[in-house]
Amino acid sequence: MSLFSLIQGEMVEVDRRLKQTLADENSLVRQVSDYLEQASGKRLRPALVLLAGQFGPQQSLENLVSVAAAVEMIHMATLVHDDVIDDADVRRGLPAVRTRFSNPVAVLTGDFLFARAFQLFAMTGRPDILSLAAEVVYVMCTGEIAQHLDQGRVATEIGYWRRIEAKTGYFLEASCRLGAMAANASDTVVEVLGQYGHHIGLAYQVVDDVLDWVADPEKLGKAVGEDIQAGIYTLPIIAALADPTFGPTLAQLLAEDHPSVEAVRNVLVESGALNQARERAREHIEKALQVLETLPPGNARSALQDVAEFIMARDH
Amino acid sequence: MSLFSLIQGEMVEVDRRLKQTLADENSLVRQVSDYLEQASGKRLRPALVLLAGQFGPQQSLENLVSVAAAVEMIHMATLVHDDVIDDADVRRGLPAVRTRFSNPVAVLTGDFLFARAFQLFAMTGRPDILSLAAEVVYVMCTGEIAQHLDQGRVATEIGYWRRIEAKTGYFLEASCRLGAMAANASDTVVEVLGQYGHHIGLAYQVVDDVLDWVADPEKLGKAVGEDIQAGIYTLPIIAALADPTFGPTLAQLLAEDHPSVEAVRNVLVESGALNQARERAREHIEKALQVLETLPPGNARSALQDVAEFIMARDH
Repeated sequence: MSLFSLIQGEMVEVDRRLKQTLADENSLVRQVSDYLEQASGKRLRPALVLLAGQFGPQQSLENLVSVAAAVEMIHMATLVHDDVIDDADVRRGLPAVRTRFSNPVAVLTGDFLFARAFQLFAMTGRPDILSLAAEVVYVMCTGEIAQHLDQGRVATEIGYWRRIEAKTGYFLEASCRLGAMAANASDTVVEVLGQYGHHIGLAYQVVDDVLDWVADPEKLGKAVGEDIQAGIYTLPIIAALADPTFGPTLAQLLAEDHPSVEAVRNVLVESGALNQARERAREHIEKALQVLETLPPGNARSALQDVAEFIMARDH
Repeated sequence: MSLFSLIQGEMVEVDRRLKQTLADENSLVRQVSDYLEQASGKRLRPALVLLAGQFGPQQSLENLVSVAAAVEMIHMATLVHDDVIDDADVRRGLPAVRTRFSNPVAVLTGDFLFARAFQLFAMTGRPDILSLAAEVVYVMCTGEIAQHLDQGRVATEIGYWRRIEAKTGYFLEASCRLGAMAANASDTVVEVLGQYGHHIGLAYQVVDDVLDWVADPEKLGKAVGEDIQAGIYTLPIIAALADPTFGPTLAQLLAEDHPSVEAVRNVLVESGALNQARERAREHIEKALQVLETLPPGNARSALQDVAEFIMARDH
């Protein structure tokens, strides 16, 4: 699909910049960076940077491409570290960096990616851009630290939204903001695009959490129901637990030492919790589309509308 | 001892800035940052930033303090991650973050510290400062990645110097450069201070590697001979291996499954390898003192001379 056709040329530049930045004279380090390249993802964040950048008067391609590549590297860094944190073996259908190499190498690779990303941000010569980028990493980390230290793990909906805001919402918001800032868009436009990013970010994560239960594991690139094994309760679980009919059954299932993924999934389907979660995601997509209406119509706005619809419709 | 008496007031400001930057509204995150504060180190890197800053015409205290605090946070981040990488239980005489909390929390804490450090660097509004700081992290990580993937671990002296340059030399060099840059020192002065930092950095690491064998474990805050357990050969080992009399005995000892720290230490003492290593450190201290001579005499230069001598004389 040609979701990003409007910025196809720029995306090629982003890939080139990524390749360039990951390259290292040391052949041992290159083993790792070549491997990272193989396991590349959807490039949603750099695409948001580039699309948001279309709303600025001065489209400095150089800066936009740097920011887009840097944002993707931050994303890669968090994924590589997440796999260490979650003992995950598979990422994007391939063995995780920690599996292919080792945990120490994965910790260092994440750090290396952060460092390279900040070098790219610095190349823009824009401390405001750098500062927001560092803020994103900070919000993601402290959100996760709090989650890890929160032994009780009460499955409240408010806790869920707070968590996914820190984990995904703020990063997608910031990707849009950073693109608009790099293109010298007005404060109002930066704000509008930030709100758009915030809403699609929340929707993205909710859809992710639904797909965790229903997606084809091959397409998803990881095992179904992984969250429950890790003891993390996402929106579908929280919604089903709140259901007077299905809640008690589910609570019993989850109290088992090794909850059956199959049994839990059946409850989520039968109770309508998965559909309920999808509806919540849809609401955020609608809000995102609504704020977009305040921006001038054109190809860039249409592309952002398409991105919002794609997030809702994707099956992996 | 009052090694940093010249910059005592500024060091208090650095501590305040660190405390401020580590503070978090979330009480769970605060558990971690309070703990980090307890286990604070010698503050060598921020002191170098402040002392180097004395050689600039315009001593913007604000920027110097930000850079000094940020440099210390980068250092803290690498230590927290190093402990995860090395499965180390003790740091600075206290349980490591990974021991006190968990490996996941330690990985995230390191990332959080990096993010906060880069926010501080960004506050200077100086992309050149940010860029060098990110470069330091990059050099440290890729150096360590290469070391981890280098299964053979041939113990050559050239490999040793390359490793400690990436691990310590470049960071101390950069601390001096960053301080001078933040104070708007001339390129020549930045360069001279950089060379000074490079040499004391190498000396610092060699002395560290010697102390690893002879220091009082209580003062050192970690077990003696830890490197050998981790299979890392430092300069004393390399020097003793090259000795025609003691080399073969040592090689045999090291080939054992669990080399005896006591037996290895005896060889290092008897062969004179520890003294040989100290001499190499001394040579770098001399070079550092020599480049300092090109700077204007005064309190700041004397303080840097004292730092160099302190690095050589320290016992933990």
